[in-house]
Amino acid sequence: MKELKGACIIGQSGGPTSVINASALGAIRTALDSGTITRVLGAAHGIRGVLDDRLYDMGKEDPAELELLRYTPSSALGSVRYKMKDPDKDPKDYERILEIFRKYDVRYFFYNGGNDSMDTCNKISKFMRRSGHECRVIGIPKTIDNDLYGTDHCPGYGSAAKFIATTCMEVYQDARVYDTGMITVIEIMGRNAGWLAAAASLACLKGAGPDLVYLPELPFSLERFYIDVEEIYRRTGKVIIGVSEGIRDEKGTYISEYGSAMAQQKDAFGHAQMGGLATTLASLLQERTGAKVRGIELSLLQRCAAHLASLTDIREAYLAGQAAVEAAIGGETDKMVAFRRDTGTRGEYLCRTELIDLHQVANLEKKVPREWINEAGNGMKQEFIDYALPLIQGEPHLPKEDSLPRFARLKKVLTSEV
Amino acid sequence: MKELKGACIIGQSGGPTSVINASALGAIRTALDSGTITRVLGAAHGIRGVLDDRLYDMGKEDPAELELLRYTPSSALGSVRYKMKDPDKDPKDYERILEIFRKYDVRYFFYNGGNDSMDTCNKISKFMRRSGHECRVIGIPKTIDNDLYGTDHCPGYGSAAKFIATTCMEVYQDARVYDTGMITVIEIMGRNAGWLAAAASLACLKGAGPDLVYLPELPFSLERFYIDVEEIYRRTGKVIIGVSEGIRDEKGTYISEYGSAMAQQKDAFGHAQMGGLATTLASLLQERTGAKVRGIELSLLQRCAAHLASLTDIREAYLAGQAAVEAAIGGETDKMVAFRRDTGTRGEYLCRTELIDLHQVANLEKKVPREWINEAGNGMKQEFIDYALPLIQGEPHLPKEDSLPRFARLKKVLTSEV
Repeated sequence: MKELKGACIIGQSGGPTSVINASALGAIRTALDSGTITRVLGAAHGIRGVLDDRLYDMGKEDPAELELLRYTPSSALGSVRYKMKDPDKDPKDYERILEIFRKYDVRYFFYNGGNDSMDTCNKISKFMRRSGHECRVIGIPKTIDNDLYGTDHCPGYGSAAKFIATTCMEVYQDARVYDTGMITVIEIMGRNAGWLAAAASLACLKGAGPDLVYLPELPFSLERFYIDVEEIYRRTGKVIIGVSEGIRDEKGTYISEYGSAMAQQKDAFGHAQMGGLATTLASLLQERTGAKVRGIELSLLQRCAAHLASLTDIREAYLAGQAAVEAAIGGETDKMVAFRRDTGTRGEYLCRTELIDLHQVANLEKKVPREWINEAGNGMKQEFIDYALPLIQGEPHLPKEDSLPRFARLKKVLTSEV
Repeated sequence: MKELKGACIIGQSGGPTSVINASALGAIRTALDSGTITRVLGAAHGIRGVLDDRLYDMGKEDPAELELLRYTPSSALGSVRYKMKDPDKDPKDYERILEIFRKYDVRYFFYNGGNDSMDTCNKISKFMRRSGHECRVIGIPKTIDNDLYGTDHCPGYGSAAKFIATTCMEVYQDARVYDTGMITVIEIMGRNAGWLAAAASLACLKGAGPDLVYLPELPFSLERFYIDVEEIYRRTGKVIIGVSEGIRDEKGTYISEYGSAMAQQKDAFGHAQMGGLATTLASLLQERTGAKVRGIELSLLQRCAAHLASLTDIREAYLAGQAAVEAAIGGETDKMVAFRRDTGTRGEYLCRTELIDLHQVANLEKKVPREWINEAGNGMKQEFIDYALPLIQGEPHLPKEDSLPRFARLKKVLTSEV
């Protein structure tokens, strides 16, 4: 097969993770060293950067700073949420992208994101082929939610899971300090899939996990919830509950919206009050049990706590970026890099990359299997622990300066400035 | 001076911190190795454990497990919030304590806590002296709030400050991912003193800190706040604000209560909704600016995130416990261990322990000096950075098991079980 020389564009899309820049580094480094790829361009804010011709020349970056991307959370090139239209319906964006691809002789496009990003890759690839512009398109997976179809797990998940499990263990310690009843509700990210909420149960391995965990895969019943909580509270006086932000009742209403039935009501300033799920459930439990309650929203920290990243996750994220570029140089296109779990000769966890068709991935969600959730629907089974534990392993050697994180400082030189 | 042989009781009191158990270890280890102290008893839930005769024989613990207390957050002996009455008004508790002290021949009492705990020490010591029971009482300082009078800083503060500053840097990365306006309000602990909120500004050293920080030492004006935020938002489209949970307006009303003017109102279940300060301010800013906003409550994590502890803080916490026991064995009583900052021959930060009179400490609060806050009252000056930076230094070698924290597993054998 004839070598395809030309430039590449690397873009980041969708929600950031703690290790998304490790994938960028894997792609950038491999592309810069390839010989085949003649110029490595980073898109400013994903596809928007391509449309606006705002592309960074990654060859101008200090290699030592690039290396620090491994330990720098949150899309360093900038991200975007932009759903591309169907090229048959509205080709304007695609024509613009083609114009840009021709301008820079872009022959490789790597897009790092979740579902929507794989859809974008798919559409772009088809259009380029139709337009007779040879360009190899590979998607690099990413999401803390771990819900991409076709891959054993996603870069970003392991680190978020590690943060959640570690934090649960620390909250467990804190909750037991006073000899008084205490109910703690921990709200964890995850709208449709409960992989993150499930991760809280890893703490149970060390006897310091939540007593109850509720995933959005199952309908949530407030009555059942009260029974679950009260049973434990009566016995021990301490209950820790992990809930996914996406839990819904039988009718499909988000439980987080129960609290904002008062969003119709206003505060002293006439402003609608935003409530949180943890706050709402804690409030309801307080009324119900009279116990001391507290709600904790783990918030963004789950997706940017690079200080507690999983070394396994960092390595695999890098590998995904590297594999994407190697595959494309080798002739592949219209694929997404996926992970396949394997077992080594000593029974150890191994992760291999493979390629799956882009169209298979787009718009499908991978939820937590029902068989991995317990009978009662309020906790995880060993199968989940066996699945998730390897993903959180390993402590990276975090670069610090004055005991604060030393993140990458990129020059981000636009092609227009060169 | 004649050696005073006898048992000691060590108790933990008030809010927990990430390093409170390092102080317990310093005291326990030093007492066990002293030869003078004949038995080392840990009170279950502070003074309550003394009153209820629930005391753990620390000599029965595995030394290797005790060592892990260094890295275990949250009062391992259990804590308590219990304000002792004036012995002249109600001596009942004191008579009971004397009974227990006589039963176990307790000649040393070490109490690790904040203001209230120093007050407890003071009262107990006086009563013992009046009753003719020789007992040396030393307080060991503790509080993430850093507001104890008479000591340069408090064990627990450095680790909380490190967590806050690191988290701010990570949130900064996350906030810049999308090319859209974003205002982030981060709620930080601290009701009356702003040491913790101020710690967020350490992140400014690395160009990744909050744009604005509001401490409770100064009256908070919503109008001034809007001007501050809008000015930055207009220029850059990104604003990160750190606020202490204790900020109050000119009249002394907590700003956090603005949001619960609707606490009078109920939700669909007839339940009062609890609001948070970050949510309230974010809400107000959204109405005011139309910007995308989010509120983050750092919550308990600030006081139990042992995974991000400061090694300096761990060492000093240990030192405080050790110094308390050494001082008491040496004949001291009615003192609190305090830290005095010093400079070494190479200009490096040093921390020395000294003793200050208990009665000087009790009921006084140390607030952030006005001169360390900027003119506009919305940020910190170099003096604060110089003060706080040494306290967050150093990375402990955290013991882990399956990449999850390995906390101390104490047997906690009650004297009644021996």
